[in-house]
Amino acid sequence: MLYSKLFPKIIKGGKKYDSINAQYLIDGGFIHQEMAGVYALLPLGLRIIEKIKKIVLKEMIAVGGQELIMTSLQRKELWEKTDRWDDEKVDVWFKSALKNGTEVGLAWSHEEQITEMMKNYISSYRDLPVNVFQFQTKLRNELRAKSGILRGREFLMKDMYSYSTSKEEHQKFYDQVIKAYIKVFQKVGLGDDTFLTFASGGAFTQFSHEFQTLTDVGEDTVFVDRKKKIAINKEVFNQELLDQLKVNKEDLEEVRGAEVGNIFSFGDTKSKQLNLYFNDEDGQKKPVILGSYGIGITRVMGVLVEKFNDENGIIWPAQVAPYQVHLIGLDLKDVEIKKKAQKLYEQLLDSKIEVLYDDREEARAGEKFAAADLIGNPIRLVISKRTGDKIEWKKRNEKESELLTINEVTERLKKY
Amino acid sequence: MLYSKLFPKIIKGGKKYDSINAQYLIDGGFIHQEMAGVYALLPLGLRIIEKIKKIVLKEMIAVGGQELIMTSLQRKELWEKTDRWDDEKVDVWFKSALKNGTEVGLAWSHEEQITEMMKNYISSYRDLPVNVFQFQTKLRNELRAKSGILRGREFLMKDMYSYSTSKEEHQKFYDQVIKAYIKVFQKVGLGDDTFLTFASGGAFTQFSHEFQTLTDVGEDTVFVDRKKKIAINKEVFNQELLDQLKVNKEDLEEVRGAEVGNIFSFGDTKSKQLNLYFNDEDGQKKPVILGSYGIGITRVMGVLVEKFNDENGIIWPAQVAPYQVHLIGLDLKDVEIKKKAQKLYEQLLDSKIEVLYDDREEARAGEKFAAADLIGNPIRLVISKRTGDKIEWKKRNEKESELLTINEVTERLKKY
Repeated sequence: MLYSKLFPKIIKGGKKYDSINAQYLIDGGFIHQEMAGVYALLPLGLRIIEKIKKIVLKEMIAVGGQELIMTSLQRKELWEKTDRWDDEKVDVWFKSALKNGTEVGLAWSHEEQITEMMKNYISSYRDLPVNVFQFQTKLRNELRAKSGILRGREFLMKDMYSYSTSKEEHQKFYDQVIKAYIKVFQKVGLGDDTFLTFASGGAFTQFSHEFQTLTDVGEDTVFVDRKKKIAINKEVFNQELLDQLKVNKEDLEEVRGAEVGNIFSFGDTKSKQLNLYFNDEDGQKKPVILGSYGIGITRVMGVLVEKFNDENGIIWPAQVAPYQVHLIGLDLKDVEIKKKAQKLYEQLLDSKIEVLYDDREEARAGEKFAAADLIGNPIRLVISKRTGDKIEWKKRNEKESELLTINEVTERLKKY
Repeated sequence: MLYSKLFPKIIKGGKKYDSINAQYLIDGGFIHQEMAGVYALLPLGLRIIEKIKKIVLKEMIAVGGQELIMTSLQRKELWEKTDRWDDEKVDVWFKSALKNGTEVGLAWSHEEQITEMMKNYISSYRDLPVNVFQFQTKLRNELRAKSGILRGREFLMKDMYSYSTSKEEHQKFYDQVIKAYIKVFQKVGLGDDTFLTFASGGAFTQFSHEFQTLTDVGEDTVFVDRKKKIAINKEVFNQELLDQLKVNKEDLEEVRGAEVGNIFSFGDTKSKQLNLYFNDEDGQKKPVILGSYGIGITRVMGVLVEKFNDENGIIWPAQVAPYQVHLIGLDLKDVEIKKKAQKLYEQLLDSKIEVLYDDREEARAGEKFAAADLIGNPIRLVISKRTGDKIEWKKRNEKESELLTINEVTERLKKY
């Protein structure tokens, strides 16, 4: 991609925001703030989201999930059956009405809708287990949206729902998803600081599980045992649980966490409320066991920025970076240098390397370096009068640069 | 994909719907009706949508479009500036409110929001032209949703917006998009029956352009000249236009059309209303010229079903079919036959052919053939006792079948 063509350019000296993720993502041209907690994804931001989605998609398919997309419009009567329509019970609804006056809600979650739909497709044990997932925009009418894209009113989630014949079948899948989630957070670059966390359960189970990434802007307080790679949400913290998990109080650190994922067992409660039953092998009617499994896709992008940045901008992990290489051409009014930079750009594209080439003739060197640092692609290459026959190579997360030949550059990028 | 694992299976003897597209798509397990005009995309339906999106994406990038995703939540004050907030002016709004009482709308279109956003990024002629597009769910509070997914309350659109420095620059892009749209409709399989159609313009231009696919369930009446590959929407039909287009009344046929795409020049009206100006090369302040370009992605899926079906189900064009091959194994309780079918399935997967394999042991032959016909993949392969060492090959749109060797099958599929 040519930076001269990229929409939009970085913003210099713009508005100040309350969080690093909002500041860098807005200034860097990744997102646009429509209103508090409501952000559009601009081309650079969309590239990151697509990369995170791809990583998540692969693991969801690996556990046997099938992708679908439910609707945003929700029927009131469904949510009344589970007592989650009333604003006193669920305080994040956006509600509206059809022309004929029928009230509708905008989905903040999808358990009710998917479970109701399953009544069309599940009647026998032969139809089970079923695991479906979606990438879907959720609308949540938060009283206070905050921390940039970490707590939004409109955001992208991956949510999966499992329907099983028994507790045992359910538990097996639940454990598989825990492993899949661990892989996902490793792959997006949050593995070291993301902890499987015990949190409050519901009618069916004592605990649910969260995946908490340690960061000061997180909303939760968690106690973490770094060695055992386990954490406990403050809301369920007590001695009994410590004993149960064989964790010593002394090994725990009290920290802030951002919930990037959660998994939850509904057991048979929702199936009973919505009347989703199946006939087992003996012809006996039984309620289906439901689990739900979320990952906050846009939140992951925000947490990545919070974890990986310096005073000049973002430092994306390579696997989710918008481009692998940020190529800067300086002194481009010199025809020879321009040719050389253009040639390298084309060579990189031919080698299927994602490259953003700052080809602007007017912009000053300082502007170009500032844009590269703010956008945060992992490798910066510079071609200029000063670099002569060579190319300057610098990693975003390192101070030192080197002068390399074209061959050395392409060889190194192959290994990347 | 194994049909035994696919969610969901086809529905037999279910509810009757008012349109072929709703009937076949729901019975075939492509979509689920949540309420009138509101449909979830199930795995098979999502595959088709993804294929249509991919075709559209490629052409939008080819004309220099950059992908982003705007938000569903809309600020009232923006739409007031262009006088499109009032329900008397725009009768398809879903409206809601933030916790603090601030009214918000759910996006039925995005011109206002994108144009307002552009004020952050466009100030000079150097920032232009810009062409951005998105695949985004639109919510439209239709009084009467009808014709299955052809007119929905929640549906997927591709919408592109162009920002240009002059009428000439705008017109050049507008003409490019017309060509790109023609390619898109050819590629999805609607080329023969989709016509560039003159429709009513606005303050800025005499006409807008629609792409109308001829189908009885279409909502529009158009006069089509099949030879000249041109059509006129009844709303603007008059002798003056016929003269202008050099079309003879005798060559026209009055038919029903479904609007699958539209392109529209706003000129400088919206930029003036929302205050989007730029400085030209001489430092003069000028309003930006705006065009908008839509394709109804879910509607295209519906129109495809309306065009390509028979009494047994859908007949997908290969390029958008959920799978290229529908492989049926019969007599699978015979271990040898089961092995052979499994082997062919794996061979096809290894050759990167998309295949849905009906591996159910319990289902009767008739059920399997009915499912294959309803789902409508282009090639049906059968392995059974009767086929011996060979494989039965049948196209979905032909009556005759042939017995081929494995090599003949794989050779033919390569050419496909």
